[in-house]
Amino acid sequence: MAKNLQIIPLGGLGGIGKNMTVYEYGRNMIIVDCGVMFPDNDMYGIDLILPDFDYVIENQDRLRGIFLTHGHMDHIGALPYLLQHVDAPIYGTPLTLGMVERQLEEKNPGHKVDLRVLHRASQHHAGPFRVSPFSVAHSIPDAVGFVIESPIGKVVHTGDYKLDETPAGGHTTDLATLRSLTQDGVLAMLGDSTNADQPGRTETERVVRDTLDRLFAEAKGQRIIVATFSSLLARLQEIITLAEKHGRKVALTGYSLNRNVELARELGYLQVSDDLIVDPQARISPGKLVVLATGSQGEPRSALNRMAEGSHRQIKIRKGDTIIISGGTIPGNEEDVSRMINNLFERGAEVIYGAMASVHVSGHGGRGDMAAMLKAVKPTYLVPLHGEPRHLYMHRHLAREMGIPEDRIFILKEGMPWLSDGTKAWTEEALELADVWVDGRLVGEIGEIVMHDRHRLSQDGFVVALIPVNDRKELAGEPQLVSRGFVHLDESGELLDAGRKEIKRLVKGNGHNLGKALEDLFFRMTRSRPVVLPRFIEV
Amino acid sequence: MAKNLQIIPLGGLGGIGKNMTVYEYGRNMIIVDCGVMFPDNDMYGIDLILPDFDYVIENQDRLRGIFLTHGHMDHIGALPYLLQHVDAPIYGTPLTLGMVERQLEEKNPGHKVDLRVLHRASQHHAGPFRVSPFSVAHSIPDAVGFVIESPIGKVVHTGDYKLDETPAGGHTTDLATLRSLTQDGVLAMLGDSTNADQPGRTETERVVRDTLDRLFAEAKGQRIIVATFSSLLARLQEIITLAEKHGRKVALTGYSLNRNVELARELGYLQVSDDLIVDPQARISPGKLVVLATGSQGEPRSALNRMAEGSHRQIKIRKGDTIIISGGTIPGNEEDVSRMINNLFERGAEVIYGAMASVHVSGHGGRGDMAAMLKAVKPTYLVPLHGEPRHLYMHRHLAREMGIPEDRIFILKEGMPWLSDGTKAWTEEALELADVWVDGRLVGEIGEIVMHDRHRLSQDGFVVALIPVNDRKELAGEPQLVSRGFVHLDESGELLDAGRKEIKRLVKGNGHNLGKALEDLFFRMTRSRPVVLPRFIEV
Repeated sequence: MAKNLQIIPLGGLGGIGKNMTVYEYGRNMIIVDCGVMFPDNDMYGIDLILPDFDYVIENQDRLRGIFLTHGHMDHIGALPYLLQHVDAPIYGTPLTLGMVERQLEEKNPGHKVDLRVLHRASQHHAGPFRVSPFSVAHSIPDAVGFVIESPIGKVVHTGDYKLDETPAGGHTTDLATLRSLTQDGVLAMLGDSTNADQPGRTETERVVRDTLDRLFAEAKGQRIIVATFSSLLARLQEIITLAEKHGRKVALTGYSLNRNVELARELGYLQVSDDLIVDPQARISPGKLVVLATGSQGEPRSALNRMAEGSHRQIKIRKGDTIIISGGTIPGNEEDVSRMINNLFERGAEVIYGAMASVHVSGHGGRGDMAAMLKAVKPTYLVPLHGEPRHLYMHRHLAREMGIPEDRIFILKEGMPWLSDGTKAWTEEALELADVWVDGRLVGEIGEIVMHDRHRLSQDGFVVALIPVNDRKELAGEPQLVSRGFVHLDESGELLDAGRKEIKRLVKGNGHNLGKALEDLFFRMTRSRPVVLPRFIEV
Repeated sequence: MAKNLQIIPLGGLGGIGKNMTVYEYGRNMIIVDCGVMFPDNDMYGIDLILPDFDYVIENQDRLRGIFLTHGHMDHIGALPYLLQHVDAPIYGTPLTLGMVERQLEEKNPGHKVDLRVLHRASQHHAGPFRVSPFSVAHSIPDAVGFVIESPIGKVVHTGDYKLDETPAGGHTTDLATLRSLTQDGVLAMLGDSTNADQPGRTETERVVRDTLDRLFAEAKGQRIIVATFSSLLARLQEIITLAEKHGRKVALTGYSLNRNVELARELGYLQVSDDLIVDPQARISPGKLVVLATGSQGEPRSALNRMAEGSHRQIKIRKGDTIIISGGTIPGNEEDVSRMINNLFERGAEVIYGAMASVHVSGHGGRGDMAAMLKAVKPTYLVPLHGEPRHLYMHRHLAREMGIPEDRIFILKEGMPWLSDGTKAWTEEALELADVWVDGRLVGEIGEIVMHDRHRLSQDGFVVALIPVNDRKELAGEPQLVSRGFVHLDESGELLDAGRKEIKRLVKGNGHNLGKALEDLFFRMTRSRPVVLPRFIEV
């Protein structure tokens, strides 16, 4: 590998999530971010997806540090798993490190790690790399991007960002510092692509504040319930400040919300007067209360969804409640969110959501923001990061429009090394990566075969055929059929009879592939194809 | 029931789909629409949902006619199932009846039915009802709403509509006729609520035509592939007209697209020069061809998705192809659509979708359209139809804003009768309805229990424990565990051993509830809870 810079994205390109990028120079490696991805709806039973970080484990002797851009799960959530295998200093801003500590407490209690605070106006040395953070505006405070200086040139790693000149309680994206850090040119930019298919600039968080201010005024005398992401700390600050302005107390409900608020207050990222927060069961007239709840995605066990279903222990929805869903719906969650909103309306609440009011803006910049970033950084090479393929291609589309030649834009696949000697750039053969699925306590034990079975079981269920035979393999009793998720076999005498008859015929005829034959029989009769498993039992 | 008008929505209120409304007066009944609903993602294995029309079957002696507003599946798709049980004249415009005939050919071949063409400027008598259709603009031509005159007053049943003064090749919504038909007042309006949470007017179809015109011009020399709904006949007309304008031939791919185009051409609803349509395999230079394909929802077996996966027999995506997704994504389909678009980009195509260009507009009016309808009809009572509960409540919200008192707006549940004597109105106890699920050939045989099992199987799979016992119920051999979708039991020796050991312990100890005990054991070890079925086998 001699003296080339090598960059390998281990995650973040196949979908939104599990962001993790390896930077190497000589025998030195640093990592930027180490996040999880949340599964698609058709990944049955999977809780989390981790990036495949075997390459890092195998080369951990070279690892000089892990740099984190911000405290969202898709950037830090896989760290507890990685740290079970490797040891390295972890760099982050104070809030990010606070979020990391909490993750580690939950997943690796007692595990000692080397956390190092990133200061904005400083440079951090890790092997031959010099890493300078710069502030970015995002939906969590204390987010940064990095200028990573290697011996052959500088790379700008934007992290998640939007420009937002009027962010809520956070920093705006510091293009001035970025420009001054990169006056001598930028070899490559690895840039956030999330909103590359959204025209124009992402609206400022201030729009949300103004809308909420108006809605709070209109809801005079009524209880207000606001649901948002517990990690949108900037949004939480706005809501709390507005509650105080409108003479309302704030009750928090939802585990992650309580934990995040506690952490952010401890670290000084949330300004909350001590007497503002009240217990959800406190006796306060509706017009004097804002309930802050988790559940903007309709998650079945979230606080707001429990209220919608009438199963929340402390809060019952009443006619006249104003409920504000202050969080965009993540693709794949639409049905859950709709169901929850339907239930809330049916309980008599007024629900404010979606296109009817600006109660949410994205934390990622649209094409206008991305164009400004490209203009500020002027990279020789662009590597779109953080997105599904369509976002990476739309990022390229934008860069081409801005005059970057197509051969200087590299759309990588996860595991594909991008190399440069400071003059030219190229890719090499990709590492073979396999996403690691987490299902309960099982990490990496569930694979494609089990998932394929779950798909089939979900559609058509199964039938296990128990076939008693003697030692000459002749039928020695009545076959039993055990089934779930197919049809009510007990009520489907016809299917049951046909199944038993087919078994007898096949066993007599020395029939091979009895499972397949039964499957075909059931398919002919029902157009459904359950998983069929025959078992011979010697009696 | 004396001389009241009774209206019962049998479908269309729990979600988008299975529209079906019963109107009764004395011993006379008519039905408006009879559609299917497509299942949510978590209704595993279900193909279609039918309204529960037992009430119609039980009272079929009173049925005087079935009136259809338009030919979309959510308004006509359940008709073949209903007609297996009842017989009545079916009224519709020519295109709607054409779509019905095709449905019947596929599902009830040979079944004779009494189809009667609806003429716009005429009145159709059915028992005491006089039904006058009026044109509405929607995404399929020949769509109508109805003014239904009963002895105690007039009801306006809007059907699906938007105003759209510049629709594509269809009629605009004929408010003038509607006003003249209702000069003497309207007792009630049953109105489309689909877009009640969308501010403003729905854009006209002309916007789409203009965008497509521009995109066709920009794609000079490149092949163009447009994916849309096969039932958006107006859209198909635009694309075909534009292809001709830009000197391109049109190739159709996808079964439903070919069938719909054939039908619409036969009936004169699509103007296509004979030499314009070519075979998808015809040798034509890319710049001279538009491929029209199904698949705007990323449906796995659709033409465009096959192209995206490289498995389409006739069309391979090539670098430079321009692909236009001209159909909004139906909630719940986001992940399929994204996956398809990602694949198309990765094959080198330029894909135009979503917010980047106005290549789709809804067929339903937004709040602006709905306000204009309310203003034209000025109903005494409003019954919001056609939507999830949130849409019905937002329809009420709009009507209240327009000055209709809340006690004159009735949000019904499916099966709930709305009655009026011409002066006052009230509801009565709802019929108990149960959606009818269609899974392959099984109509109504799959119920909640089977669905619950499919859910559990999809998450954690199953384990069947085969336990050989003698006639004294003592263990008489080694227990076998048969499993799918849980973990690879064969590779999980620890689980297998623990399971066998637990079985032996329980059988010896005369343990009851062996299934539950095994379930708990597996849960302790994995945090997954497979369906566990023990079976004792006497040997």
